[in-house]
This record gives sequence, structure tokens and C-alpha cells, in this order.
Amino acid sequence: MRVTLLDTGRMTIDRSQVLWNVDCGTKLWFPIYAVLVEHPDGLFLFDTGVDPDHVRAAFPWERIEQTPEQRLEAQLRSAGASPDDVTHLVNSHLHFDHVGANRLLRGARTFVAEAELRAARAPQPFEALAYSDRSFEEASAFELLEGDVELAHGLRLYATPGHCAGHYSLLVDGDAEHRSMLFTFDAAYSLENLEREIISGFHLDPIAATESIRRLKALAAEHDAELFVAHDLPAFAGYRRAPDAYELSGVPA
Amino acid sequence: MRVTLLDTGRMTIDRSQVLWNVDCGTKLWFPIYAVLVEHPDGLFLFDTGVDPDHVRAAFPWERIEQTPEQRLEAQLRSAGASPDDVTHLVNSHLHFDHVGANRLLRGARTFVAEAELRAARAPQPFEALAYSDRSFEEASAFELLEGDVELAHGLRLYATPGHCAGHYSLLVDGDAEHRSMLFTFDAAYSLENLEREIISGFHLDPIAATESIRRLKALAAEHDAELFVAHDLPAFAGYRRAPDAYELSGVPA
Repeated sequence: MRVTLLDTGRMTIDRSQVLWNVDCGTKLWFPIYAVLVEHPDGLFLFDTGVDPDHVRAAFPWERIEQTPEQRLEAQLRSAGASPDDVTHLVNSHLHFDHVGANRLLRGARTFVAEAELRAARAPQPFEALAYSDRSFEEASAFELLEGDVELAHGLRLYATPGHCAGHYSLLVDGDAEHRSMLFTFDAAYSLENLEREIISGFHLDPIAATESIRRLKALAAEHDAELFVAHDLPAFAGYRRAPDAYELSGVPA
Repeated sequence: MRVTLLDTGRMTIDRSQVLWNVDCGTKLWFPIYAVLVEHPDGLFLFDTGVDPDHVRAAFPWERIEQTPEQRLEAQLRSAGASPDDVTHLVNSHLHFDHVGANRLLRGARTFVAEAELRAARAPQPFEALAYSDRSFEEASAFELLEGDVELAHGLRLYATPGHCAGHYSLLVDGDAEHRSMLFTFDAAYSLENLEREIISGFHLDPIAATESIRRLKALAAEHDAELFVAHDLPAFAGYRRAPDAYELSGVPA
């Protein structure tokens, strides 16, 4: 397997939205990325990043940066692929910053948690902005998942709800070359969410979200996994990004 | 009946904690008050305000102001009563800014929602600070309530959970002299929470909290009630406060 992180830009957020009720009024930059996995069964993409035009229209009080090189098609090219090569797309959830380029992946089988699609179609009032990029409806014919799912050998989705109704985190099995990789997606924006067990300021169910943080910590310990959090600029600076990648030979550790 | 608002001080809060995720970084002053009702069946007190020593220790990043005249005993005196005169105490919920002087009311029968006492004794991690004034445990032998309750003729408690596990709002029946009075307590910190149907930044269950805001709006409409919100300084400035009071003759409207 080869795992490539695709950097699709960054936007601003309040630190109290990363860490609920902490340091209100401190603006942070927030990286947004997708994960590409070349696998014997196909080319798997997890999330599609953000549409900056949507952000400018829906969140005019935030700043967004996406260079031409950060558009998803350019990022895929940098990883040696084109949108048409992607066979499987998984949306960790359906918030605007995870579905922004679903429209490019019409040829891929597309997966999402069943509870998430239902929630996105009838959001709570406080979730309306998070689900405001509706382009996935026209772009994607979702296959619906429930509970933990082994998507392919060595690629497992773990249900980590609370941030929203249905949410998946991704475990990529490690090998002799590299430890397992645990992509938390928005169940943990930052390492600090995990360390302090504080959920993000955007959430549907704070109790479930707290349980999901604990589940991620337990999974990381159980699998000796390296943690890849969703929206932590200092942590992101330390990750390999396209065209660089994590190469996994598949030889057991 | 005579209804007297007891001003027990004020502290600072972020506007995004009054209105979830709105205007992060804007500090506001937050009034804290209790409600005294002289009723043929006894002297009823709703909430007991805040203990500033507790706030200084537990929330050192916030400012608190409580003058000697704003201590609960002084406020009761201003309303012509002493702590020993209070026959019934109701805590709308058990957050620190609603239980700060329960210790003065040991002689009163004391009521709280059953779900609230249970939650306060085993809080979620994100609720630990809200329940950090534990003095109610030693001060109060609670009688536990469930669902909507007619506490006495013309004094009704409505279950409005979501901000926390168990929460009551209070409706005082009006008469020819004055409209009914609906005290939202923390189910609505401010009028803006009601108008925009946005819950406060501190909450246990956002869906239930949103439903409670809608319930309060429906109750206010149904009973043509004047709304008294919990923590809105401009609104509070327009309320009569001890020694002034709302006099209700009991003659039907």
C-alpha cells in the first residue's frame, strides 16, 4: 500500500471551536486534507477537501486559502493519479470541508455512514452551516455503512460519532516499514483534543464525541498506531504530503 | 403573590458561550440572580446565585463582582426576608452560579430535578467545572422532581433540559395586575437565544436544548407570559429588582 496525504488548503477557525470553550477569541489556521490509499483492491480516497467558493459564500467571516496546486485534481496529479482512477471514495462525514470535491469522483463507489447521510439531509438547526455544501447530493450515489467496517484488507473504518451523527475514522494496518496509521478525521481535530480529552466546539452529541476520543486513544494504543489528526497545523507540518508518501510493503512487522 | 428578583452579582463570559459558536472572543458581563416568591403556601426561592470565592478559585480567568449588598442574605433582607423565612428552595439546576448560597437555606425544603442531581454527582468531563461548587451536597437534602410539576397554585415548573441533564423553568401565573412571568433560567441565557433559537455554548445535549428553547417560546405564547431570561445584562436592567417587586393580587385577568 501507499498512503498519500493530499493538502487541499486551509481556513481560519476559533481555537474554542477546536477545543470546546477553550481560549475563545484566538484565531487559528486549520489544515484541510484528504487521504489517498493505493491498495491491491483499488485506489481509495478518504474525503475530498473543501470548495473555497462555498466557504467564501457560506462563511464570509473566515479566511480560506487554496492555491491552484491545492485543488484536489492537482493534488491527485501530484500523487500520480487522476480523479477517474479513484475506485472507492469514503466520506468520513458530510461536513463542507470533507465533501468539497465529491463532484470530481462520480466514477467511484462512494461510502458514508448511514446515520450521517440521514442527518445531513435533516440537520439540526445548529448543524445547518456545517452541512451547507450540498453538492454531494448530486455528485454521489452513496453506499451506506453501519458500525465498524473492514473496507479492504488492512483498511478498517471505526465508528466514531458525536462530532456528527455518523463519523468514521480510518486505520491503515502497518507493517515492517511503518507503524499502523490512524486517521481520526474530525473525531479529533488536534492532538490536544486527544491529550486533554476535550471535544471540538462543533458537535452533535458531546457524550458520544467524548467516548469517540477515548476510543481513538484506545485504538492507537492497541494497534501501536501513529495518529493523524484532522485539523492541527503544527501536527500536519510533520506529516508526509503529496508527492511524498508513506510506503507500506505489506511485509508483516 | 409578590415576585422579587435578587441581584447576586455578575461575572464575565464569552459571547460564544452565551450563543454557541457566535462572536468568539467577545467578553460580556453576565448577571446572576435568584427569584423570591411570597406565596400563600410559603416563601419560595428559586436558585441561590453564586459564591464569588468559588469563582475566583475555579474560574481565575473570569472576572466576578459581588458587592456586600449583592450577597444573598443582603438581597433577602432588602426584600424583607431572612434565610430562615424561606420555606421552599428550588434549584433550576446545579451549576455553580445557581447553588452558590444553598448553604444559607438549610431550613427550607429543597427541590431539584432527579436527573440533575444524578448528573451533578457523576458529571461528564466537560461538565466538571460547571458542577465544581459542591457545597450543595452538604447543604441540601434534596426532594427530587420529575417532569412538569405544579409546585403550588400558580407556580409551575416546566422541564427544559439540554443545557444540563435536568433543568426547570418557572411560570408564575399572572392576574389582572401583571402578565404571567416565565423565568427561563439557563434554558435561555438571553433574549437572543430565544429569537435566533441558538443554544448556549455550555450544554449537555444540543438537540434537547434546542427543543427546550422552542418549548419556552411556545409556553410564553400560550400563557402570554413576560420572559425573564437568565444571563442577559441589557434585559436584566429592565427588570424590577429588590427592594422593588412584582405585586400580583391574584385577581384573575
